[in-house]
Amino acid sequence: MKASTPNDTMWDRVWLGAHLATMTGGAAYNTPGSGEELDELRDAALAVKDGRIAWLGSRQELDGMQWSAREITRAQGLWITPGLVECHTHLVYGGDRSNEFAARLRGATYEEISRAGGGIVATMKATRAATEDELLEQSLPRARALAAEGVTTLEIKSGYGLDLANELKMLRVAQRIGEVTGLSVVKTFLGAHALPPEFAGRQEDYVRHICDEMLPAVASAELADAVDVFCERIAFTQEQTRRIFARAAELGLPLRLHADQLSDGNGGEIAADCGALSADHLEHTSEQSLQRMAERGVVAGLLPGAFYYLRETKLPPIERLRQLNIPMAISTDCNPGTSPIASLLMAMNMACVMFRLTAAETLRGVTVNAARALGLSKDRGTLQVGSRADLAIWRLRHPEQLCAEVGVHRPVEIVLGSGSRSVESALRTRP
Amino acid sequence: MKASTPNDTMWDRVWLGAHLATMTGGAAYNTPGSGEELDELRDAALAVKDGRIAWLGSRQELDGMQWSAREITRAQGLWITPGLVECHTHLVYGGDRSNEFAARLRGATYEEISRAGGGIVATMKATRAATEDELLEQSLPRARALAAEGVTTLEIKSGYGLDLANELKMLRVAQRIGEVTGLSVVKTFLGAHALPPEFAGRQEDYVRHICDEMLPAVASAELADAVDVFCERIAFTQEQTRRIFARAAELGLPLRLHADQLSDGNGGEIAADCGALSADHLEHTSEQSLQRMAERGVVAGLLPGAFYYLRETKLPPIERLRQLNIPMAISTDCNPGTSPIASLLMAMNMACVMFRLTAAETLRGVTVNAARALGLSKDRGTLQVGSRADLAIWRLRHPEQLCAEVGVHRPVEIVLGSGSRSVESALRTRP
Ligand SMILES: [Zn+2]
Ligand SMILES: [Zn+2]
Repeated sequence: MKASTPNDTMWDRVWLGAHLATMTGGAAYNTPGSGEELDELRDAALAVKDGRIAWLGSRQELDGMQWSAREITRAQGLWITPGLVECHTHLVYGGDRSNEFAARLRGATYEEISRAGGGIVATMKATRAATEDELLEQSLPRARALAAEGVTTLEIKSGYGLDLANELKMLRVAQRIGEVTGLSVVKTFLGAHALPPEFAGRQEDYVRHICDEMLPAVASAELADAVDVFCERIAFTQEQTRRIFARAAELGLPLRLHADQLSDGNGGEIAADCGALSADHLEHTSEQSLQRMAERGVVAGLLPGAFYYLRETKLPPIERLRQLNIPMAISTDCNPGTSPIASLLMAMNMACVMFRLTAAETLRGVTVNAARALGLSKDRGTLQVGSRADLAIWRLRHPEQLCAEVGVHRPVEIVLGSGSRSVESALRTRP
Repeated sequence: MKASTPNDTMWDRVWLGAHLATMTGGAAYNTPGSGEELDELRDAALAVKDGRIAWLGSRQELDGMQWSAREITRAQGLWITPGLVECHTHLVYGGDRSNEFAARLRGATYEEISRAGGGIVATMKATRAATEDELLEQSLPRARALAAEGVTTLEIKSGYGLDLANELKMLRVAQRIGEVTGLSVVKTFLGAHALPPEFAGRQEDYVRHICDEMLPAVASAELADAVDVFCERIAFTQEQTRRIFARAAELGLPLRLHADQLSDGNGGEIAADCGALSADHLEHTSEQSLQRMAERGVVAGLLPGAFYYLRETKLPPIERLRQLNIPMAISTDCNPGTSPIASLLMAMNMACVMFRLTAAETLRGVTVNAARALGLSKDRGTLQVGSRADLAIWRLRHPEQLCAEVGVHRPVEIVLGSGSRSVESALRTRP
């Protein structure tokens, strides 16, 4: 017989007097407006127990309740947001490509850099050459930088190994990043990122290799939470994308897509047809694709960092995304070539300045909508009872400062789900 | 009689095996090229004594010498750059203007925001309303954020007080920021930033007030190291600028200028005529102004953050600056309205991505050329014997990573001149 003990009703910790941005706006993800758009709860309280949010509401309501907590934090004037969700990165890689960046500024063309062994192949070589430990050591600072800004859930793609052993190595490193930092890491297999040199001129063979060898091996190793494809004229065709997606779906793996970044490749439509969680980039997505994404509830992943680095001029169809009520997620696309940005706050600022998203849209884009892009909206990206206690706690006048002001904001504390350990201690744990 | 003791020849500290970016390229500030352009000294050593660089050279050379040091740091693979010099900020201010940023994204016009009491007047009110201690507390995080990125010399302007008492308060806060953090703070009086409401319709009276009352008071309080004017159609006229500059020169104060940001106002020429150290912004500077700047050695202060925030399309005349060999400095312009960026590394990245400066030009722009813009090139902004021991020590493959990669780089240590205290401890000292 199990008796009820006082501990059963005792919260692990409660924050008193904080303002909450609950982000629980419901289905109208992109709803514009003012004031209420973050679902602000002022002078409120929030309690956690066993790594979940156990209660939240107004101070007044709390005063009328019976409660106890192991730890009470007076948080007057602080803001609590959901831990930020970074839903699209390639942050596990070896080496860096700053030399290419510098060479281009000195006038070198992409062709010259490519002939000199640059581009994605340079990263592939450095990634293959690194041991798993070396790769972890090189990649951890990027994950830690994101965590220090309030990220608590982090997607990481493979795609620089481009053979089975090295793709698995990348995914294991992604997994270890989660173990070392305490972040929730979502691992995405992106074998179809580029054609490895050993398959030069044999793209179909590589796609078959992905479907027949790599995908089943990755799935049976349980090292991927999802599968992604770079569908683009310079990468994989629409037909190949659909084939890889069909195989991944057979294996029960959720899908996401690099879609329509440099040209319209019906990426949005393919993502919708195949039931993908998100279609990312979308600068060149057609009206037909957008309609299909709206019908199927595909999240639009916006990546302003790559837009900025590549000095693109064609914006993603923001106004149509709003009109069609397609949820917009914002991410760094952190990668060594086209977006070497390990700062989600900077990507948020760019979403506002360059894409003209509102502050509320941007904050939804790194919380509720990013969680949805990862298939985790059940208990991530909002503050509500039952959600994981992934919290970012900030000294701010208002969360829109996170969008407007660069370089100065860091959470005063981050809480990472069960155990509620602060990221401070997580960051101090060395691998 | 004073005897020579062993201590006289003992260094305080020496770093062994580091790579040095000495930035001692001499007069050719903008020299393009590759490899040698940062004057790299690989596998070198650097010694400091009494807050100055006492020796630097190759490891090999050092091995042939007699030396001793109180502290020896093995720094294999680390890079040492001069402490970064941030030469143009407005980082002392009260309040924030994120609400205006958010309102504009929701569709509000500048006029509506202005009518609602926004813009520079909002910052003036919040700055006037804050006590000196409150202003310090609000401004320190921005200075600390810059310091954490390797900044060791920091220019701070007044210009939100707009009356004598509040301008002096701002300058005292700037001074205290230097005392609290250990940073070298350069204080600039910018009373001619905007017209305060109490002088509405009486701009000439305000200029007379600046010349007759404020400038002498600021000078006699020894609270300004320089004087700046916002010369622009929406601010102060060319004639008023010259008048304020003449008065400042009489008082022995160096000059700098906000020049030609929104329109060509002969700013570069005025700066040159009056012997100003730098002319900043320069998006609309005329060929004639550029010629005069080159003749008189005026530094071009480039502020890509404001360009980015305001979504400008007219670039400063970078190619002409190169051809005329006008030194280019890079800065954040950190201010609450048009560039709320407390990250010099981000401004450096923007200088590369948006202005197409090379990595070497950008690194010169935050070291040797920024020191020159502040009139401090004698012992700041380069690594050479006799310079202040203001050092930033980085774990990098190459300093061009500081330009290419966002969000991930922080110095492993910062040394701040005399006493060589690291910024870590400086940052921990609370006011
Ligand atoms: Zn990507
Ligand atoms: Zn300025």
